[in-house]
Amino acid sequence: MSSSLGTHFRIATWGESHGGGIGVVIDGCPPGLPLGEADIQTELDRRRPGQSEIVTPRKEEDRCEILSGVFEGQTLGSPIAILVRNKDARPSAYEEMATKYRPSHADFTYDAKYGLRNWQGGGRASARETIGRVAAAAVARKVLDALSPGIEILAWVNTIKDLQARVDPLKVTAADIESNIVRTGDPAMVDDMIALIKEARDEGNSLGGTIEAVARGCPPGLGEPVFDKLEADLAKAMMSLPATKGFEIGSGFAGTFLTGAEHNDPFYMENGRVRTKSNRSGGVQGGITNGEPVLFRVAFKPTATIMSSQATVSSDGEDTELKGRGRHDPCVLPRAVPMVEAMTTLVLCDHLLRQRAQCGLEPHAPPVPAAT
Amino acid sequence: MSSSLGTHFRIATWGESHGGGIGVVIDGCPPGLPLGEADIQTELDRRRPGQSEIVTPRKEEDRCEILSGVFEGQTLGSPIAILVRNKDARPSAYEEMATKYRPSHADFTYDAKYGLRNWQGGGRASARETIGRVAAAAVARKVLDALSPGIEILAWVNTIKDLQARVDPLKVTAADIESNIVRTGDPAMVDDMIALIKEARDEGNSLGGTIEAVARGCPPGLGEPVFDKLEADLAKAMMSLPATKGFEIGSGFAGTFLTGAEHNDPFYMENGRVRTKSNRSGGVQGGITNGEPVLFRVAFKPTATIMSSQATVSSDGEDTELKGRGRHDPCVLPRAVPMVEAMTTLVLCDHLLRQRAQCGLEPHAPPVPAAT
Amino acid sequence: MSSSLGTHFRIATWGESHGGGIGVVIDGCPPGLPLGEADIQTELDRRRPGQSEIVTPRKEEDRCEILSGVFEGQTLGSPIAILVRNKDARPSAYEEMATKYRPSHADFTYDAKYGLRNWQGGGRASARETIGRVAAAAVARKVLDALSPGIEILAWVNTIKDLQARVDPLKVTAADIESNIVRTGDPAMVDDMIALIKEARDEGNSLGGTIEAVARGCPPGLGEPVFDKLEADLAKAMMSLPATKGFEIGSGFAGTFLTGAEHNDPFYMENGRVRTKSNRSGGVQGGITNGEPVLFRVAFKPTATIMSSQATVSSDGEDTELKGRGRHDPCVLPRAVPMVEAMTTLVLCDHLLRQRAQCGLEPHAPPVPAAT
Amino acid sequence: MSSSLGTHFRIATWGESHGGGIGVVIDGCPPGLPLGEADIQTELDRRRPGQSEIVTPRKEEDRCEILSGVFEGQTLGSPIAILVRNKDARPSAYEEMATKYRPSHADFTYDAKYGLRNWQGGGRASARETIGRVAAAAVARKVLDALSPGIEILAWVNTIKDLQARVDPLKVTAADIESNIVRTGDPAMVDDMIALIKEARDEGNSLGGTIEAVARGCPPGLGEPVFDKLEADLAKAMMSLPATKGFEIGSGFAGTFLTGAEHNDPFYMENGRVRTKSNRSGGVQGGITNGEPVLFRVAFKPTATIMSSQATVSSDGEDTELKGRGRHDPCVLPRAVPMVEAMTTLVLCDHLLRQRAQCGLEPHAPPVPAAT
Repeated sequence: MSSSLGTHFRIATWGESHGGGIGVVIDGCPPGLPLGEADIQTELDRRRPGQSEIVTPRKEEDRCEILSGVFEGQTLGSPIAILVRNKDARPSAYEEMATKYRPSHADFTYDAKYGLRNWQGGGRASARETIGRVAAAAVARKVLDALSPGIEILAWVNTIKDLQARVDPLKVTAADIESNIVRTGDPAMVDDMIALIKEARDEGNSLGGTIEAVARGCPPGLGEPVFDKLEADLAKAMMSLPATKGFEIGSGFAGTFLTGAEHNDPFYMENGRVRTKSNRSGGVQGGITNGEPVLFRVAFKPTATIMSSQATVSSDGEDTELKGRGRHDPCVLPRAVPMVEAMTTLVLCDHLLRQRAQCGLEPHAPPVPAAT
Repeated sequence: MSSSLGTHFRIATWGESHGGGIGVVIDGCPPGLPLGEADIQTELDRRRPGQSEIVTPRKEEDRCEILSGVFEGQTLGSPIAILVRNKDARPSAYEEMATKYRPSHADFTYDAKYGLRNWQGGGRASARETIGRVAAAAVARKVLDALSPGIEILAWVNTIKDLQARVDPLKVTAADIESNIVRTGDPAMVDDMIALIKEARDEGNSLGGTIEAVARGCPPGLGEPVFDKLEADLAKAMMSLPATKGFEIGSGFAGTFLTGAEHNDPFYMENGRVRTKSNRSGGVQGGITNGEPVLFRVAFKPTATIMSSQATVSSDGEDTELKGRGRHDPCVLPRAVPMVEAMTTLVLCDHLLRQRAQCGLEPHAPPVPAAT
Repeated sequence: MSSSLGTHFRIATWGESHGGGIGVVIDGCPPGLPLGEADIQTELDRRRPGQSEIVTPRKEEDRCEILSGVFEGQTLGSPIAILVRNKDARPSAYEEMATKYRPSHADFTYDAKYGLRNWQGGGRASARETIGRVAAAAVARKVLDALSPGIEILAWVNTIKDLQARVDPLKVTAADIESNIVRTGDPAMVDDMIALIKEARDEGNSLGGTIEAVARGCPPGLGEPVFDKLEADLAKAMMSLPATKGFEIGSGFAGTFLTGAEHNDPFYMENGRVRTKSNRSGGVQGGITNGEPVLFRVAFKPTATIMSSQATVSSDGEDTELKGRGRHDPCVLPRAVPMVEAMTTLVLCDHLLRQRAQCGLEPHAPPVPAAT
Repeated sequence: MSSSLGTHFRIATWGESHGGGIGVVIDGCPPGLPLGEADIQTELDRRRPGQSEIVTPRKEEDRCEILSGVFEGQTLGSPIAILVRNKDARPSAYEEMATKYRPSHADFTYDAKYGLRNWQGGGRASARETIGRVAAAAVARKVLDALSPGIEILAWVNTIKDLQARVDPLKVTAADIESNIVRTGDPAMVDDMIALIKEARDEGNSLGGTIEAVARGCPPGLGEPVFDKLEADLAKAMMSLPATKGFEIGSGFAGTFLTGAEHNDPFYMENGRVRTKSNRSGGVQGGITNGEPVLFRVAFKPTATIMSSQATVSSDGEDTELKGRGRHDPCVLPRAVPMVEAMTTLVLCDHLLRQRAQCGLEPHAPPVPAAT
């Protein structure tokens, strides 16, 4: 079950970095939606290695094949299985890892949990697993378009180490973000961020940073009380991405420095619609969207694979040293942008169907506006 | 489903702040564990209102009754139902809220989602709901004691607004934390924190802060790859608590300022056991415990209920004003400490049973040590 | 999890026959439905002991209390908790069972599974557990009324031992069935069935039989392909009732004696609606309703508790004898009628919400008619 | 979710009869089990078309590929994805079905549910979907072998129309069943059954029948109280197979003709083990295995595809006629035998892991014996 996510739009990913491939099965997708491999490929291309000079040079075209659930260009309502073959696998690059645990990787913990692991590449812990998520999200996007048109989901690099972008979450566009290989929404920071990443790469070192994301145009009413609050499900979704160390929504950690009088978001009416003057809530109150932009940030640690020698232990319990090999991203942030968008899309899609199941999608209470 | 949590040790909470009561049903609890109402009451007493001068004066004794699943002092393996009646409910204090939405509360979003709400108190969004969680965690604690003795779970107030406690997560004890009503582990900060909370209370204002928590003595191997990573489930559990705005594990957001060479945790052997020299991973790698302390922080916003007048709207769509009434915590942090511990206990208990189901609980791989 | 049923309209029952009570928590109920305790009590009264001279004389009023999820007569969308206290418990009647396993009861298997059991009455295996199911179904009924009005669910005693009722499933009414204490739809068989049951009771013996049930007015499209076929979920629901040994739908076991040419149900058009001339399919094809009546039968074994002495073993592994005591039904069929109706209602309600989640409830394909 | 089964050993199948292929993803499989494609292929070969003169001549080799979750011949604990390509698809044979509903097939109900369907072959409703189940069961078999060795699961053709086999469920062997193409355990009936099937095939007609199955050597304690009783999960599993109309366990429908005194199974001790003298319970009491053979029967209707002309309607609502085409089984029973075994294996495997999760697998209560 650990590889499944969602209750109504449910995805199950599978695959290791070296092996037959990577894939996903989507169950619960509404029927009659237009879907083709091109819809999915577009998103996979944003995620794949080798796309620019600041990401891993592993050569994977990551071509997807839809195996089921689509007929004559439309979803059938039955499970949609998507397959991406592994191509440029180089297990020989990992032979030393068969017996030595890479620091801050999952090698030791997988052995501790299962008693064995696929040591060729990251196995199941590889970021290649996120192919299935990104593919599934491309399908979820179709559901949003059909059932709640106007929801816009964007993520961008907010910081790389101590370089801070300045981006207006209400105005930034997909084009802004895709216009540069680091995927920040702040043109002024692009060159500095690229330079910093290249410097780390050339030193065999690595960098972390934060991604900020927004979902604009969500109708009020998405998310559930108690455990499945929208921010709880977003937090889980983000913290399930490789290399994440933190999540915050709205005012986040900084909000703890304010008093209640400073922090509360006053309501007001605007064109018959309930709005808030500020958005420290981050678009959710009591776990449920209030119609304001859903706004959050995710922390990614510096890539664990570095090219210098590090102290570690072997699988037979001896102290030893290990130097990184293989092809890796010196900074995962640029490729993590589509992953954050994908996870957001999946969470919103699931909650949209949950809302339809229990309450229906028509607006419920005066003066709740129609989704726009 | 939104009121259920866990896959193997599964809890379902129910109840509104005003109504027949609050409760929880626990399904999947191992049989033969010693359990009585006193075990649960102890934890409820740490959570309940009226326990000190810096929390809400609502007078709820919160006496629990075990309705099922226990026989002659032992768990039966069947569902354990626990009931706490509401006593000191004062719905009249909320009459104005029937038609006015409290800023940064869930009044508007519940109406938007469901088309109606119980406006007497917070309804389902009230922090009284956490009674069920705390009660369930007292049962989960018995499971940990039986199946993985030695796991120690502690939380404490780390910051109140800009007051920062200094606590050693490896050494702090339950007695340290319980020795003061603000539940910080730093004796030097107790008086300042209490004074700040009282000041806010007297001004009709409110405060937020952060809680830090540690789980010491977890065996390696708990947590799942991909979606149900231990940190993902912890993040969800914490972000499902009322008033939370952020979660971070290990190095967290601050870790993004380090390079990989600075951030990685080198492995070494200690008495036949795999250890790490630093713990920026926060005790989890690839979503799975590595045997080091699991260490994380949670941000709580300042309480939304304040006693000054705020701009808001009415349920029929008119701009208006509202002044807080009712009895509320000027700062939720002291009472949130047992809630954070409870959610941690529930997550670990569920993952322990998941591990037993799939892999068994015996240590798996050399040189994995026995849990200590 | 074993005490939960349903994916979208999810119920969790709890309670033993002797202890604090019996109850259920319903999660996922649509908001805004009219609901009061009287709606539930009506159905509980059809299920409760002591209602007639041919059922167990245990004196339980089975008064229900709605503890949460309802406000001012309407469902809130939050979990609905319902409690029924145990009153006329006589644990002393069961003392011998503390150490002797009753034949064809669950005493031995509970010990084998859990290592202990509540030996006072049937514990968790008691038919009192079905109180929670019947109460939940009264709520589910409200969902059907709101979202798919016109669905009519009826069950009746079809056979008692070798006494066979003749009932037209298309015409039988609730009044027909409730007009007699044995709850058969065939007036001609009432006296014989009652006499046979009384005879068994007077001999300290017991009887079994079959219940037939129909759901009329189901819209086409309910049920899911593959594992959650409507007939699969109905089979599970029925086989989860105490004392059931068999389930068949439509032509059932008798249908295996026909050839395909004899068995197939030809389609034809009737007033713009797709109909079948025969209904050997039992209203489902490929796991999905086709708009014809859903028709099935359930086998109940003779009650395991009899008043004669039987060979058995003790919990310390010695051969011994045991004579039934306590108050029991000589034939469970009359009281099982509302249980079969309840389980049918729960299954249909869950599938209705599943259909709404994935496909919406509007008719999908020409010439699919509107639900009538 | 409708394509997923199991809670701890969870499978998700996907695929249509015509399209990219058929497959399954298994989540929750214990690590370290020996597994190769040959293990799976053996079972798929028992299920595949074209294996004998009495089954459909469709030429599918059904070669499986393990895409993930296995490394160097051992299960990893991560999801196991298995793919079987469709080869001998002839969509042109189905063109007429694009607009005409085949009687007693799922064409109409899929249109009613989803508004569209893949009309090439049975689409998702095709029995090809069971490839995923059979493949998953081959993996589940490895789990049983590792955690509860000695469980033996066998199914055989019990009746074809009115031809009744006589088989001793305690003694029949896999070799007995596989020795004949009809897969009955009664050598005396083989020729008659084959002749009857050939006769139906030559007439363009079809036949149904019943399959009987036994699980010998199950330890006491498998199965859950209330909803997930072992017989309830078996009933669901069997009724989810295509063409099934009925399920009964132990005494089944015939047991309703007995009195309690006749029906009860007396306990006795045998070599320190609790046994029952008769087995009308079918190996389960209160939903939980008692250590006796689990014994049940499943009814399969005659194949819906026949070669004579039948009345039906078109998808635009006109009365019309349709004559069967395509390649089909005149009787599904011989190929359904491995499907029934597969579903039994999956259910037992899931319950074995559930038992390990909650209670551990060691025997619990005196005088519960070790599983043998």
